[in-house]
Amino acid sequence: MDSPKPRAVVLLSGGLDSATCCAIARDQGFAIHALSFDYGQRHAGELGAARRVAEAEGVAEHVVTSIDLRAIGGSALTADLEVPKGRSAEEMDTGIPVTYVPARNTIFLSFALAWAEVLESTDIFIGINALDYSGYPDCRPAYLRAFQDMADLATKAGVEGQTRTTIHAPLITLRKRDIIRRGLELGVDYGLTRSCYDPTEDGSACGRCDSCLLRLRAFEACGVEDPAPYATGARP
Amino acid sequence: MDSPKPRAVVLLSGGLDSATCCAIARDQGFAIHALSFDYGQRHAGELGAARRVAEAEGVAEHVVTSIDLRAIGGSALTADLEVPKGRSAEEMDTGIPVTYVPARNTIFLSFALAWAEVLESTDIFIGINALDYSGYPDCRPAYLRAFQDMADLATKAGVEGQTRTTIHAPLITLRKRDIIRRGLELGVDYGLTRSCYDPTEDGSACGRCDSCLLRLRAFEACGVEDPAPYATGARP
Repeated sequence: MDSPKPRAVVLLSGGLDSATCCAIARDQGFAIHALSFDYGQRHAGELGAARRVAEAEGVAEHVVTSIDLRAIGGSALTADLEVPKGRSAEEMDTGIPVTYVPARNTIFLSFALAWAEVLESTDIFIGINALDYSGYPDCRPAYLRAFQDMADLATKAGVEGQTRTTIHAPLITLRKRDIIRRGLELGVDYGLTRSCYDPTEDGSACGRCDSCLLRLRAFEACGVEDPAPYATGARP
Repeated sequence: MDSPKPRAVVLLSGGLDSATCCAIARDQGFAIHALSFDYGQRHAGELGAARRVAEAEGVAEHVVTSIDLRAIGGSALTADLEVPKGRSAEEMDTGIPVTYVPARNTIFLSFALAWAEVLESTDIFIGINALDYSGYPDCRPAYLRAFQDMADLATKAGVEGQTRTTIHAPLITLRKRDIIRRGLELGVDYGLTRSCYDPTEDGSACGRCDSCLLRLRAFEACGVEDPAPYATGARP
Protein backbone atom coordinates (compact mmCIF):
# COMPACT_ATOMS: atom_id res chain seq x y z
CA MET A 1 0.00 0.00 0.00
CA ASP A 2 1.19 3.52 -0.75
CA SER A 3 1.99 5.68 2.25
CA PRO A 4 -0.55 8.50 2.60
CA LYS A 5 0.30 11.81 0.93
CA PRO A 6 1.53 14.58 3.22
CA ARG A 7 -1.17 17.18 3.87
CA ALA A 8 -0.96 20.81 2.86
CA VAL A 9 -3.32 23.69 3.60
CA VAL A 10 -3.84 25.69 0.40
CA LEU A 11 -5.42 29.15 0.50
CA LEU A 12 -7.88 29.16 -2.37
CA SER A 13 -9.65 32.38 -3.34
CA GLY A 14 -10.96 31.18 -6.69
CA GLY A 15 -8.71 33.59 -8.55
CA LEU A 16 -6.11 32.79 -11.17
CA ASP A 17 -3.15 32.85 -8.77
CA SER A 18 -4.59 30.61 -6.07
CA ALA A 19 -5.83 28.08 -8.66
CA THR A 20 -2.31 27.87 -10.06
CA CYS A 21 -0.86 27.59 -6.57
CA CYS A 22 -3.25 24.73 -5.81
CA ALA A 23 -2.18 22.89 -8.97
CA ILE A 24 1.48 23.31 -7.96
CA ALA A 25 0.76 21.82 -4.52
CA ARG A 26 -1.02 18.89 -6.19
CA ASP A 27 1.92 18.47 -8.58
CA GLN A 28 4.28 18.33 -5.56
CA GLY A 29 2.34 15.36 -4.20
CA PHE A 30 0.37 16.95 -1.36
CA ALA A 31 -3.13 15.99 -0.27
CA ILE A 32 -4.81 19.38 -0.48
CA HIS A 33 -6.93 20.86 2.29
CA ALA A 34 -8.24 23.96 0.58
CA LEU A 35 -9.30 26.95 2.67
CA SER A 36 -11.47 29.80 1.41
CA PHE A 37 -12.94 32.80 3.21
CA ASP A 38 -16.32 34.40 3.02
CA TYR A 39 -15.19 37.81 4.27
CA GLY A 40 -17.87 40.11 2.97
CA GLN A 41 -15.95 40.64 -0.26
CA ARG A 42 -18.03 42.46 -2.84
CA HIS A 43 -16.87 39.96 -5.44
CA ALA A 44 -18.56 36.97 -3.72
CA GLY A 45 -18.58 35.14 -7.08
CA GLU A 46 -15.00 34.20 -6.13
CA LEU A 47 -16.39 31.65 -3.67
CA GLY A 48 -18.28 29.82 -6.40
CA ALA A 49 -15.05 29.84 -8.41
CA ALA A 50 -13.14 28.48 -5.39
CA ARG A 51 -15.61 25.57 -5.14
CA ARG A 52 -15.29 24.77 -8.85
CA VAL A 53 -11.49 24.93 -8.73
CA ALA A 54 -11.37 22.74 -5.59
CA GLU A 55 -13.50 20.13 -7.33
CA ALA A 56 -11.47 20.26 -10.54
CA GLU A 57 -8.22 19.91 -8.57
CA GLY A 58 -9.50 16.86 -6.67
CA VAL A 59 -8.77 18.30 -3.22
CA ALA A 60 -9.09 16.07 -0.13
CA GLU A 61 -11.24 18.69 1.61
CA HIS A 62 -12.48 22.23 1.03
CA VAL A 63 -13.54 24.44 3.92
CA VAL A 64 -15.14 27.86 3.45
CA THR A 65 -14.97 29.79 6.68
CA SER A 66 -16.79 33.03 7.46
CA ILE A 67 -15.01 36.03 8.88
CA ASP A 68 -16.42 39.50 9.18
CA LEU A 69 -13.95 42.04 7.84
CA ARG A 70 -16.73 44.55 7.11
CA ALA A 71 -16.91 45.32 10.85
CA ILE A 72 -13.45 46.86 10.60
CA GLY A 73 -13.80 48.28 7.05
CA GLY A 74 -10.98 50.09 5.29
CA SER A 75 -10.86 48.63 1.76
CA ALA A 76 -12.66 49.02 -1.54
CA LEU A 77 -13.11 45.22 -1.53
CA THR A 78 -15.09 45.15 1.72
CA ALA A 79 -16.33 48.71 2.27
CA ASP A 80 -18.28 51.06 0.04
CA LEU A 81 -15.35 52.68 -1.78
CA GLU A 82 -14.94 53.06 -5.54
CA VAL A 83 -12.88 50.35 -7.31
CA PRO A 84 -10.45 52.13 -9.69
CA LYS A 85 -10.95 51.35 -13.39
CA GLY A 86 -8.95 51.55 -16.60
CA ARG A 87 -5.57 52.26 -14.98
CA SER A 88 -2.34 51.80 -16.91
CA ALA A 89 0.43 49.50 -15.64
CA GLU A 90 2.30 52.64 -14.49
CA GLU A 91 -0.69 53.96 -12.53
CA MET A 92 -1.12 50.59 -10.82
CA ASP A 93 2.51 50.72 -9.77
CA THR A 94 2.20 53.86 -7.62
CA GLY A 95 1.49 53.35 -3.94
CA ILE A 96 -0.89 50.99 -2.18
CA PRO A 97 -4.24 50.67 -4.00
CA VAL A 98 -7.59 51.18 -2.24
CA THR A 99 -8.32 47.50 -2.95
CA TYR A 100 -5.65 46.59 -0.38
CA VAL A 101 -7.41 44.89 2.54
CA PRO A 102 -5.57 45.72 5.78
CA ALA A 103 -3.62 42.73 7.08
CA ARG A 104 -5.66 40.35 4.92
CA ASN A 105 -2.88 37.89 4.17
CA THR A 106 -1.93 37.88 7.86
CA ILE A 107 -5.50 36.98 8.79
CA PHE A 108 -5.72 34.31 6.07
CA LEU A 109 -2.35 32.78 6.96
CA SER A 110 -3.30 32.76 10.65
CA PHE A 111 -6.36 30.63 9.90
CA ALA A 112 -4.25 28.39 7.65
CA LEU A 113 -1.77 28.02 10.48
CA ALA A 114 -4.55 27.04 12.91
CA TRP A 115 -5.95 24.48 10.51
CA ALA A 116 -2.50 23.10 9.66
CA GLU A 117 -1.93 22.55 13.36
CA VAL A 118 -5.20 20.62 13.67
CA LEU A 119 -4.33 18.56 10.57
CA GLU A 120 -0.76 17.99 11.80
CA SER A 121 0.43 19.51 8.55
CA THR A 122 3.53 21.70 8.31
CA ASP A 123 2.91 22.98 4.79
CA ILE A 124 0.85 26.01 3.81
CA PHE A 125 0.52 27.28 0.24
CA ILE A 126 -0.41 30.85 -0.64
CA GLY A 127 -0.58 32.25 -4.16
CA ILE A 128 0.79 35.70 -3.42
CA ASN A 129 2.91 37.52 -5.92
CA ALA A 130 5.46 40.25 -5.30
CA LEU A 131 5.67 41.56 -8.86
CA ASP A 132 2.14 42.19 -10.01
CA TYR A 133 1.04 43.45 -6.60
CA SER A 134 4.16 45.35 -5.57
CA GLY A 135 1.96 47.87 -3.75
CA TYR A 136 0.70 45.32 -1.19
CA PRO A 137 2.96 45.20 1.87
CA ASP A 138 1.92 41.66 2.74
CA CYS A 139 2.96 40.19 -0.62
CA ARG A 140 6.70 40.67 -0.08
CA PRO A 141 9.22 37.88 0.64
CA ALA A 142 10.46 39.62 3.81
CA TYR A 143 6.90 39.64 5.15
CA LEU A 144 6.50 35.92 4.48
CA ARG A 145 9.77 35.07 6.23
CA ALA A 146 8.65 37.06 9.28
CA PHE A 147 5.30 35.25 9.27
CA GLN A 148 7.09 31.91 9.16
CA ASP A 149 9.34 32.87 12.11
CA MET A 150 6.28 33.93 14.10
CA ALA A 151 4.42 30.74 13.14
CA ASP A 152 7.16 28.56 14.58
CA LEU A 153 6.73 30.24 17.94
CA ALA A 154 2.92 30.25 17.78
CA THR A 155 2.22 26.54 17.62
CA LYS A 156 2.52 23.35 19.64
CA ALA A 157 4.93 21.85 17.08
CA GLY A 158 7.15 24.91 17.51
CA VAL A 159 7.19 24.53 21.30
CA GLU A 160 7.95 20.85 21.05
CA GLY A 161 10.84 21.49 18.65
CA GLN A 162 9.26 19.63 15.74
CA THR A 163 9.48 20.44 12.04
CA ARG A 164 9.16 24.07 11.03
CA THR A 165 6.06 25.29 9.30
CA THR A 166 6.82 26.06 5.67
CA ILE A 167 4.88 28.82 3.98
CA HIS A 168 5.12 27.98 0.28
CA ALA A 169 4.62 30.94 -2.04
CA PRO A 170 5.55 29.37 -5.39
CA LEU A 171 4.29 32.36 -7.41
CA ILE A 172 6.01 35.06 -5.42
CA THR A 173 8.61 36.00 -8.02
CA LEU A 174 6.69 35.01 -11.16
CA ARG A 175 5.20 37.45 -13.63
CA LYS A 176 1.48 36.97 -14.27
CA ARG A 177 2.19 35.59 -17.76
CA ASP A 178 4.57 32.98 -16.25
CA ILE A 179 1.96 32.01 -13.67
CA ILE A 180 -0.51 31.38 -16.50
CA ARG A 181 2.04 29.37 -18.50
CA ARG A 182 2.82 27.20 -15.45
CA GLY A 183 -0.88 26.67 -14.75
CA LEU A 184 -1.60 25.70 -18.35
CA GLU A 185 1.20 23.10 -18.17
CA LEU A 186 -0.46 21.68 -15.02
CA GLY A 187 -3.87 21.58 -16.69
CA VAL A 188 -5.56 24.42 -14.76
CA ASP A 189 -8.90 25.36 -16.31
CA TYR A 190 -8.78 29.16 -16.03
CA GLY A 191 -12.36 29.31 -17.25
CA LEU A 192 -13.32 28.25 -13.70
CA THR A 193 -11.39 31.06 -12.01
CA ARG A 194 -12.51 34.62 -11.25
CA SER A 195 -10.23 37.59 -10.63
CA CYS A 196 -12.43 40.68 -11.12
CA TYR A 197 -12.72 43.19 -8.26
CA ASP A 198 -16.08 44.44 -9.52
CA PRO A 199 -17.98 41.79 -11.50
CA THR A 200 -21.43 42.29 -13.06
CA GLU A 201 -24.50 40.73 -11.45
CA ASP A 202 -24.28 37.63 -13.65
CA GLY A 203 -20.67 37.10 -12.53
CA SER A 204 -18.96 38.37 -15.68
CA ALA A 205 -15.67 40.19 -15.21
CA CYS A 206 -15.68 43.98 -15.74
CA GLY A 207 -12.48 43.93 -17.83
CA ARG A 208 -11.43 47.34 -16.50
CA CYS A 209 -10.34 47.01 -12.84
CA ASP A 210 -6.64 46.51 -12.03
CA SER A 211 -7.13 42.77 -11.57
CA CYS A 212 -8.92 42.28 -14.91
CA LEU A 213 -6.40 44.42 -16.76
CA LEU A 214 -3.40 42.54 -15.35
CA ARG A 215 -5.04 39.25 -16.23
CA LEU A 216 -6.08 40.22 -19.75
CA ARG A 217 -2.65 41.68 -20.54
CA ALA A 218 -0.96 38.52 -19.24
CA PHE A 219 -3.15 36.18 -21.32
CA GLU A 220 -2.45 38.40 -24.32
CA ALA A 221 1.31 38.10 -23.65
CA CYS A 222 0.90 34.30 -23.60
CA GLY A 223 -0.97 34.39 -26.90
CA VAL A 224 -3.90 32.57 -25.27
CA GLU A 225 -7.49 33.77 -24.95
CA ASP A 226 -8.71 34.10 -21.35
CA PRO A 227 -11.52 31.51 -21.10
CA ALA A 228 -13.30 33.35 -18.22
CA PRO A 229 -16.54 35.24 -18.98
CA TYR A 230 -16.30 39.02 -19.45
CA ALA A 231 -19.04 41.61 -19.71
CA THR A 232 -20.03 42.48 -23.28
CA GLY A 233 -17.41 44.73 -24.84
CA ALA A 234 -15.12 44.40 -21.80
CA ARG A 235 -12.59 42.19 -23.56
CA PRO A 236 -9.93 44.23 -25.38
CA MET B 1 -8.98 72.23 23.65
CA ASP B 2 -7.28 69.00 24.64
CA SER B 3 -5.64 67.09 21.82
CA PRO B 4 -7.50 63.86 21.08
CA LYS B 5 -6.35 60.75 22.90
CA PRO B 6 -4.25 58.29 20.90
CA ARG B 7 -6.25 55.23 19.84
CA ALA B 8 -5.52 51.69 20.91
CA VAL B 9 -7.12 48.43 19.84
CA VAL B 10 -7.77 46.31 22.94
CA LEU B 11 -8.62 42.62 22.62
CA LEU B 12 -11.49 42.10 25.05
CA SER B 13 -12.74 38.59 25.76
CA GLY B 14 -14.80 39.46 28.82
CA GLY B 15 -12.48 37.49 31.09
CA LEU B 16 -10.55 38.72 34.09
CA ASP B 17 -7.28 39.27 32.22
CA SER B 18 -8.64 41.24 29.28
CA ALA B 19 -10.77 43.44 31.58
CA THR B 20 -7.63 44.30 33.55
CA CYS B 21 -5.69 44.91 30.35
CA CYS B 22 -8.44 47.27 29.15
CA ALA B 23 -8.28 49.22 32.42
CA ILE B 24 -4.50 49.52 32.05
CA ALA B 25 -4.90 50.91 28.50
CA ARG B 26 -7.46 53.42 29.80
CA ASP B 27 -5.09 54.36 32.64
CA GLN B 28 -2.33 54.99 30.07
CA GLY B 29 -4.55 57.55 28.34
CA PHE B 30 -5.67 55.67 25.24
CA ALA B 31 -9.06 55.96 23.57
CA ILE B 32 -10.07 52.32 23.55
CA HIS B 33 -11.36 50.50 20.49
CA ALA B 34 -12.33 47.17 21.99
CA LEU B 35 -12.43 44.07 19.80
CA SER B 36 -14.20 40.83 20.74
CA PHE B 37 -14.73 37.65 18.75
CA ASP B 38 -17.74 35.43 18.40
CA TYR B 39 -15.77 32.33 17.42
CA GLY B 40 -18.13 29.52 18.28
CA GLN B 41 -16.73 29.30 21.80
CA ARG B 42 -18.82 27.06 24.02
CA HIS B 43 -18.64 29.69 26.74
CA ALA B 44 -20.53 32.35 24.73
CA GLY B 45 -21.46 34.09 28.00
CA GLU B 46 -18.04 35.71 27.65
CA LEU B 47 -19.45 37.99 24.96
CA GLY B 48 -22.09 39.40 27.30
CA ALA B 49 -19.30 39.95 29.82
CA ALA B 50 -17.22 41.71 27.14
CA ARG B 51 -20.11 44.09 26.43
CA ARG B 52 -20.58 44.87 30.13
CA VAL B 53 -16.85 45.46 30.65
CA ALA B 54 -16.63 47.68 27.54
CA GLU B 55 -19.48 49.82 28.85
CA ALA B 56 -18.04 50.02 32.37
CA GLU B 57 -14.62 51.01 30.96
CA GLY B 58 -16.13 53.78 28.82
CA VAL B 59 -14.57 52.57 25.57
CA ALA B 60 -14.79 54.74 22.43
CA GLU B 61 -16.08 51.80 20.39
CA HIS B 62 -16.70 48.07 20.82
CA VAL B 63 -16.81 45.74 17.82
CA VAL B 64 -17.77 42.07 18.08
CA THR B 65 -16.69 40.26 14.95
CA SER B 66 -17.71 36.74 13.93
CA ILE B 67 -15.17 34.17 12.89
CA ASP B 68 -15.82 30.49 12.42
CA LEU B 69 -13.16 28.44 14.19
CA ARG B 70 -15.49 25.43 14.50
CA ALA B 71 -14.89 24.71 10.79
CA ILE B 72 -11.29 23.85 11.65
CA GLY B 73 -11.94 22.35 15.11
CA GLY B 74 -9.18 21.08 17.35
CA SER B 75 -9.93 22.49 20.81
CA ALA B 76 -12.15 21.70 23.79
CA LEU B 77 -13.31 25.33 23.63
CA THR B 78 -14.70 25.06 20.10
CA ALA B 79 -15.13 21.34 19.41
CA ASP B 80 -16.93 18.62 21.32
CA LEU B 81 -14.08 17.57 23.63
CA GLU B 82 -14.27 17.22 27.42
CA VAL B 83 -13.10 20.26 29.46
CA PRO B 84 -10.80 18.93 32.24
CA LYS B 85 -12.06 19.56 35.79
CA GLY B 86 -10.63 19.69 39.31
CA ARG B 87 -6.96 19.65 38.29
CA SER B 88 -4.25 20.70 40.74
CA ALA B 89 -1.80 23.49 39.88
CA GLU B 90 0.80 20.79 39.15
CA GLU B 91 -1.49 18.95 36.75
CA MET B 92 -2.27 22.20 34.91
CA ASP B 93 1.44 22.78 34.50
CA THR B 94 2.10 19.70 32.37
CA GLY B 95 1.92 20.11 28.61
CA ILE B 96 -0.51 21.98 26.43
CA PRO B 97 -4.11 21.64 27.65
CA VAL B 98 -6.98 20.55 25.35
CA THR B 99 -8.49 24.01 25.88
CA TYR B 100 -5.65 25.44 23.76
CA VAL B 101 -7.19 26.83 20.57
CA PRO B 102 -4.71 26.43 17.70
CA ALA B 103 -3.18 29.75 16.68
CA ARG B 104 -5.97 31.66 18.42
CA ASN B 105 -3.87 34.58 19.57
CA THR B 106 -2.34 34.84 16.11
CA ILE B 107 -5.81 35.06 14.57
CA PHE B 108 -7.00 37.59 17.17
CA LEU B 109 -3.88 39.75 16.84
CA SER B 110 -4.18 39.66 13.04
CA PHE B 111 -7.67 41.15 13.23
CA ALA B 112 -6.44 43.70 15.77
CA LEU B 113 -3.64 44.60 13.38
CA ALA B 114 -6.10 45.07 10.52
CA TRP B 115 -8.37 47.28 12.61
CA ALA B 116 -5.42 49.27 14.00
CA GLU B 117 -4.36 49.98 10.43
CA VAL B 118 -7.85 51.25 9.55
CA LEU B 119 -7.91 53.40 12.73
CA GLU B 120 -4.36 54.66 12.10
CA SER B 121 -3.44 53.33 15.52
CA THR B 122 -0.08 51.78 16.31
CA ASP B 123 -1.02 50.34 19.71
CA ILE B 124 -2.60 46.95 20.37
CA PHE B 125 -3.29 45.59 23.85
CA ILE B 126 -3.64 41.89 24.62
CA GLY B 127 -4.13 40.43 28.09
CA ILE B 128 -2.02 37.31 27.66
CA ASN B 129 -0.05 35.89 30.50
CA ALA B 130 3.04 33.70 30.36
CA LEU B 131 2.92 32.42 33.92
CA ASP B 132 -0.56 31.09 34.50
CA TYR B 133 -0.81 29.70 30.95
CA SER B 134 2.73 28.44 30.50
CA GLY B 135 1.39 25.59 28.37
CA TYR B 136 0.12 27.89 25.60
CA PRO B 137 2.80 28.51 22.95
CA ASP B 138 1.24 31.79 21.86
CA CYS B 139 1.42 33.37 25.33
CA ARG B 140 5.22 33.63 25.42
CA PRO B 141 7.23 36.87 25.11
CA ALA B 142 9.29 35.45 22.20
CA TYR B 143 6.08 34.77 20.29
CA LEU B 144 4.87 38.33 20.83
CA ARG B 145 8.16 39.81 19.63
CA ALA B 146 7.97 37.69 16.48
CA PHE B 147 4.39 38.83 15.88
CA GLN B 148 5.45 42.45 16.24
CA ASP B 149 8.31 41.98 13.73
CA MET B 150 5.90 40.39 11.28
CA ALA B 151 3.32 43.15 11.85
CA ASP B 152 5.79 45.84 10.87
CA LEU B 153 6.26 44.16 7.51
CA ALA B 154 2.56 43.42 7.01
CA THR B 155 1.14 46.93 7.00
CA LYS B 156 1.17 50.14 5.01
CA ALA B 157 2.77 52.02 7.91
CA GLY B 158 5.58 49.46 7.92
CA VAL B 159 6.18 49.89 4.19
CA GLU B 160 6.18 53.65 4.49
CA GLY B 161 8.70 53.54 7.36
CA GLN B 162 6.33 55.01 9.92
CA THR B 163 6.06 54.21 13.61
CA ARG B 164 6.26 50.57 14.62
CA THR B 165 3.21 48.74 15.83
CA THR B 166 3.50 48.07 19.55
CA ILE B 167 1.86 44.96 20.93
CA HIS B 168 1.30 45.77 24.60
CA ALA B 169 1.00 42.75 26.86
CA PRO B 170 1.03 44.40 30.29
CA LEU B 171 0.05 41.20 32.11
CA ILE B 172 2.56 38.91 30.48
CA THR B 173 4.83 38.44 33.50
CA LEU B 174 2.25 38.98 36.26
CA ARG B 175 0.86 36.26 38.49
CA LYS B 176 -2.93 36.01 38.48
CA ARG B 177 -3.10 37.44 42.02
CA ASP B 178 -1.05 40.49 40.89
CA ILE B 179 -3.33 40.99 37.89
CA ILE B 180 -6.31 41.09 40.25
CA ARG B 181 -4.56 43.51 42.62
CA ARG B 182 -3.71 45.84 39.71
CA GLY B 183 -7.27 45.66 38.40
CA LEU B 184 -8.77 46.42 41.80
CA GLU B 185 -6.51 49.51 42.05
CA LEU B 186 -7.85 50.63 38.66
CA GLY B 187 -11.46 50.05 39.72
CA VAL B 188 -12.22 46.98 37.58
CA ASP B 189 -15.54 45.40 38.57
CA TYR B 190 -14.65 41.70 38.38
CA GLY B 191 -18.29 40.85 38.98
CA LEU B 192 -18.82 41.77 35.31
CA THR B 193 -16.13 39.40 34.01
CA ARG B 194 -16.40 35.71 33.13
CA SER B 195 -13.52 33.23 32.94
CA CYS B 196 -15.16 29.79 33.11
CA TYR B 197 -14.48 27.31 30.28
CA ASP B 198 -17.70 25.41 30.99
CA PRO B 199 -20.38 27.63 32.57
CA THR B 200 -23.89 26.46 33.55
CA GLU B 201 -26.88 27.42 31.42
CA ASP B 202 -27.63 30.48 33.58
CA GLY B 203 -24.05 31.71 33.06
CA SER B 204 -22.69 30.73 36.48
CA ALA B 205 -19.06 29.57 36.59
CA CYS B 206 -18.45 25.85 37.18
CA GLY B 207 -15.73 26.48 39.78
CA ARG B 208 -13.81 23.34 38.69
CA CYS B 209 -12.22 23.94 35.26
CA ASP B 210 -8.61 25.15 35.08
CA SER B 211 -9.69 28.73 34.48
CA CYS B 212 -12.10 28.82 37.47
CA LEU B 213 -9.55 27.16 39.76
CA LEU B 214 -6.77 29.60 38.81
CA ARG B 215 -9.13 32.51 39.37
CA LEU B 216 -10.55 31.31 42.66
CA ARG B 217 -7.09 30.51 44.06
CA ALA B 218 -5.83 33.96 43.01
CA PHE B 219 -8.76 35.79 44.66
CA GLU B 220 -8.15 33.71 47.76
CA ALA B 221 -4.45 34.71 47.72
CA CYS B 222 -5.56 38.37 47.55
CA GLY B 223 -7.91 37.86 50.50
CA VAL B 224 -10.82 39.11 48.35
CA GLU B 225 -14.02 37.27 47.45
CA ASP B 226 -14.52 36.77 43.70
CA PRO B 227 -17.70 38.79 42.95
CA ALA B 228 -18.59 36.70 39.85
CA PRO B 229 -21.49 34.22 40.07
CA TYR B 230 -20.60 30.55 40.64
CA ALA B 231 -22.84 27.47 40.48
CA THR B 232 -24.22 26.36 43.85
CA GLY B 233 -21.54 24.59 45.84
CA ALA B 234 -18.86 25.43 43.23
CA ARG B 235 -17.13 28.04 45.36
CA PRO B 236 -14.46 26.52 47.65
